Parts: sequence; C-alpha cells; structure tokens
Amino acid sequence: MRCDFALSSKGERKFITIRLKAQSLRVIFFKRGEKYILIAVNQFIRIMSLLTVGTVAFDDIETPGGRAEKVVGGAATYIALAASYFTRDIRIVSVVGDDFPTEELGDLQSRGVDLQGLQIRKGEKSFFWAGRYRNNMNERDTLETQLNVLADFDPILPESYKNVPFLMLGNLTPSVQQQVIEQMHQRPKLIALDTMNFWMNTAMDGLLKVLKMIDILIINDEEARQLSGEYSLVRAARAIHALGPRFLVIKKGEHGALLFEGDQVFFAPALPLEEIVDPTGAGDTFAGGFMGYLTKTQDTSFENMKRAVIHGSAMASFCVEAFSIERLKTLTEQEINDRILQFARLVNFD
Amino acid sequence: MRCDFALSSKGERKFITIRLKAQSLRVIFFKRGEKYILIAVNQFIRIMSLLTVGTVAFDDIETPGGRAEKVVGGAATYIALAASYFTRDIRIVSVVGDDFPTEELGDLQSRGVDLQGLQIRKGEKSFFWAGRYRNNMNERDTLETQLNVLADFDPILPESYKNVPFLMLGNLTPSVQQQVIEQMHQRPKLIALDTMNFWMNTAMDGLLKVLKMIDILIINDEEARQLSGEYSLVRAARAIHALGPRFLVIKKGEHGALLFEGDQVFFAPALPLEEIVDPTGAGDTFAGGFMGYLTKTQDTSFENMKRAVIHGSAMASFCVEAFSIERLKTLTEQEINDRILQFARLVNFD
Repeated sequence: MRCDFALSSKGERKFITIRLKAQSLRVIFFKRGEKYILIAVNQFIRIMSLLTVGTVAFDDIETPGGRAEKVVGGAATYIALAASYFTRDIRIVSVVGDDFPTEELGDLQSRGVDLQGLQIRKGEKSFFWAGRYRNNMNERDTLETQLNVLADFDPILPESYKNVPFLMLGNLTPSVQQQVIEQMHQRPKLIALDTMNFWMNTAMDGLLKVLKMIDILIINDEEARQLSGEYSLVRAARAIHALGPRFLVIKKGEHGALLFEGDQVFFAPALPLEEIVDPTGAGDTFAGGFMGYLTKTQDTSFENMKRAVIHGSAMASFCVEAFSIERLKTLTEQEINDRILQFARLVNFD
Repeated sequence: MRCDFALSSKGERKFITIRLKAQSLRVIFFKRGEKYILIAVNQFIRIMSLLTVGTVAFDDIETPGGRAEKVVGGAATYIALAASYFTRDIRIVSVVGDDFPTEELGDLQSRGVDLQGLQIRKGEKSFFWAGRYRNNMNERDTLETQLNVLADFDPILPESYKNVPFLMLGNLTPSVQQQVIEQMHQRPKLIALDTMNFWMNTAMDGLLKVLKMIDILIINDEEARQLSGEYSLVRAARAIHALGPRFLVIKKGEHGALLFEGDQVFFAPALPLEEIVDPTGAGDTFAGGFMGYLTKTQDTSFENMKRAVIHGSAMASFCVEAFSIERLKTLTEQEINDRILQFARLVNFD
C-alpha cells in the first residue's frame, strides 16, 4: 500500500498530512519550543465514485447459436455492472418504464449501484432494442428500436451526484451528454464519452461541442474513421485529438483496442475466444471496466490508462461469454485476476 | 555470448565440447595416469542457413495512392530479403525467365542469397501478377496472372541445399512443396509452409498430405477458417494442429498475428501505421523475418517463436512503407532494433 507523508506549516500551525491510497489524514498542531500541542486530526476520504449516464433497457437478441427475449440491456447497465468490480460507489442517471423488473434493480443496488438518478416513469415502457447477429458475430442488423421513455429523456442529476470525480457518458444524444456535464458543480477529474455513427450523421454540431468538454473519447474503429475522415487510425487519432479529447480509445472488437495520447500509443488485444455467445454490451462493458479501474486507482497517467484498457478488455471478454448481463453478475475477483494474467501472457515477450 | 562446456568420455577417450553460439569445438584426448595426450580438435560449425522455395516474379500494383509497373515481387524474393537481415546464408529454389533483370539478381546475391537453385529459363517470361487494392488496402482484386515459367515448374534442389536445417515453403502447388521436402537428405530441423484458399479449393488432397510433413503452417485468418471449417480462430487452431503442424501462425494483416502451439497462444499486434503505401509481400516478408530469426537463433522453443513472430511483424511493417521490395533493400540493424522496441512499447503493461 502506498503511503506518503508531507510536512507543511502556516504561521504557527504545523501540519502533517498522511496520504493513504484513498484517503488522507491531516494532523494539525502547534509547536511551542519543544512542546507539541495537538489541535485536530482531519480525515479526508477521496471519493472513488463513478457517475454513468446511459440507457437501461430491454433487448431481444438473435445470434447464429441462439436467442434471448426481453433480456436486460442498456449501456448504463453494462457500464455500471462492469465498473462494480472495481468500485462500489457508482451512480446512474437513466430512465426506465415501470415494466422494468424490480428484481433487476435490486441486483444493481446490491452491487453498489446508486439508483437515485434512475427515473422510473409510471405507465410507460422502457427503451427496447431488437437485433440479429450475422454468422461472424461482427455484424448485426437492428430489427427494431422502440425509444419509449427515452424519447423525451431529460437527465436530472441528484445533488449528491454533482461532485463525482469520474464521469462516463454512455452513447446518447450529444446534447443530453452535454446537459449532464453542465449540471456538475465542479468539472470531474475525468470525463469519458461514447458515441456512434448515428449522431455523426444527425447531430454532428452537438457532438463537436461536447467533444470539446471531455477527456477521453471511446469509440470503435469505424466511428473513428467516420469522425475524422481518415482511414489510418494513427491519422484518425491525431484528427480526433484536435477536436478536443486528450485521450482516445479505439475499440476494434475481436481485434482489440488502441489507446492514444498525443504520439503515445498502446494496444491491447482481445482474448482469442473459443466461442462468442453474445457480443451485445461488450463495448459498454469495456468502458465500464476501463472507467471502473481508473476510478479505483485514481491515476490518470498514460501508464495507468494502459492497465485500465487491459481491465476493460478483460471485462469485455467475460461479457461475450453469455447472453445479456448474465456473466457480469457472477464474476469473482480471482476470475478477473486470472484473466488479466492471460492478457499479460498473450502479448508478453522478452 | 553464450559459451557452454561439456565433458564426456568413451572408453579411454575423453572429450571436451565447447559450444559457442553457432559453432562447437570438440577437443579429444586420452588421459594416461597424470598425462594428457591430445588426439584432435574438431570444429563443427552449425549451419545457420535457410532454404526458401517460392516465386520470383514481376508485379503490377495499383493502390488508391499510386501505381508501380513491372516491379520485382514474388514470395521467395520477399522471404529471402527479409531473412537476409538475420542470416547471410539463404538458398532459393525458384524459376524466372530471362526477362528478369540481372541487376536485381545481383542485389539478392549481395545480401547473401545463393542463387544456385534459381532456374533461369532462356526465351521464357517470368511469373507476372497484376493487382489493384481497394480503398481500405485490406482487399485486393487480381487483374491478371501470367504463370509463364511457373506453369511447369519442377523444383530441383542442388546437392548443397539438401542438408539445410530451416526450410520455408512459400505459397505454391502443394505437390511442388512436397517434392522439395522429399529431395532433402535429412529432414530439416524446422519446416514452415505458406498456402492459400486457391489450393484448398483445387488441391486439398495434396495440401493435406504436405501438412503432415511440416512443423509450422503460416496462413491468414480467412485461410485458417476455410481450412478448418471453424470461425473461432482458437477452434481453427485446434483443428489445424490435428492435420499435422505443431505450430500455427495466423496472420491477420493490420490486426496482427497469432501463434499457436497446443493450448499456448501468443499475439503480436501490427504496428499502427500512418500510411500504407503497398501491402504486397507483407505476408511473405513476415514469414521471411520469422524464419530468418529462427535460423539465426537456432531455437524453436515457444518462447523464441514469440520473438520470431515479433521480428516477422517488424519486417512486415517496413515492407508496406514502399512499393515492391524497395524498403527491404535499405534497412539498417538500428532501424530494425528500434522497431522491435516500438512493438514492445506498444503492448507492454505492468
């Protein structure tokens, strides 16, 4: 465990600040001659909490190997569940209808997810998406989208959410993402954002605006190419940095993920898997694992971002092993650590 | 430098074997009482040589960014050039017409490539291929193929080639690849083979036969899927191991390469590049760098194969920086070492 000491003084008062991993103690005293007079011991707990905004929804999923009907889905659900393995203080801003099962909400709560910001609309229906994956699991067709409660979603942040230091904006209308940032009392230490082609086609102005307000953009390769107009991902990264985000994560599905900051680049592979049951939510699970790890470690250096990318990739590799959020409900710390080790073995050479 | 000593005896004779990196000295003597009688000092030089069989040809190449006409190409050319940065004893078995420029042959020779096994057919034309790359550089269309001298290619190995310990069979008719193996006096320490969909469609029996005779199959992901009938590359690898090859390298182009041996797997990324000028020959360059490194190090453990995959990837990353073989003519050891370091930085995390 890391533990730092610092000595400082202000006039006659002397301070000893002791920093542990997630909290600091400050011992305040006078020194009179050889005598120490203790005044106070203040404890500051650094808030390791993550706020995520996104859909909480139902999915119908068809894959070449099976189907699942009206199962739990939604970006915020996957993000929160994945992050819950790294931090137990997660706030959600989202909206569901009263058709959403209470039991599932209870499951989220029991994993440390605060639902104060989840609006439950009486007499309305939750967002619904139906899709079918093609044979290679890399492409999917949307069969149906019912916006329902999402149609006029107005994200309202509870007061207690407005100082959260880590913010993950799931894929939503850019203006809604912006509204969330604008409600914060102080700018979060780190803001990450996911988006998609649809918003580039229909709300590019809004997207460009919100891109200037964030730190990390998390998108897939196709989206990076569309946003930048560059095929080379190295050039795409440079163009996207110029739009605002200091960090860029490009997800390449079964081909791994790239992390860019300036001229630095890091690559994390996807784990070669024998079987992919359901890719739904893998990207959001990646984002949740990534931001969960950063929230836990409170360290936004490039070196630590690399580790975060590996943790995100590990969580995504679990996600695809079962339909819906099933696999994300039952993981153990040991399973996660073993998988991280598998990633290290996969790419490690001397 | 590694240097091992070993003591042994046979009857009255005693031996001291001194192994240096690529050679061993054996000192043979009698011990009579306290007296040593020297009998002989034998020097064994381990042959660090690589034999490659494949095309030496002309290409017409069109990319979205440019074109090159009647430039030097061919699998054996790329393999030999890439390998020449690791070993200076490379033998080629191939065939060209007398239209092939002498100057280019001289260039190959000056890089340590022995051309005794290169048949030059008078009055005939060299193999010619014309292709056009699509916008993303990942797909290409063959515009023209002229077999010419390749139509009735009979690979004849010079005597001096028949004991070479490392053999790289470039993409050719499986029966031709088999003929080469059968001409060897002793089974090479390591036989690698490249092939393509075309032979799976037209000569599967021959391919299955030769697969039982080799150690390493080097193919791309699409070919691995077709050969195994499995979409998952993990399952494809298992199915291909069962066909004969103990090692399998699956090249995924811009998405890197996977190495499999039994249940062990290693992944090497491709370097994210700003610009790809011409992907022609990248796969063969990979194979050349890979086998060149193994020939140099004489170590076929999984750990060393990992390094070989990285060296192959590094060489391929240079290949695509210019049309034809241009970039492979001018590399320096420093440039190669720097790039290997870039690969390490790209994937390394703690």
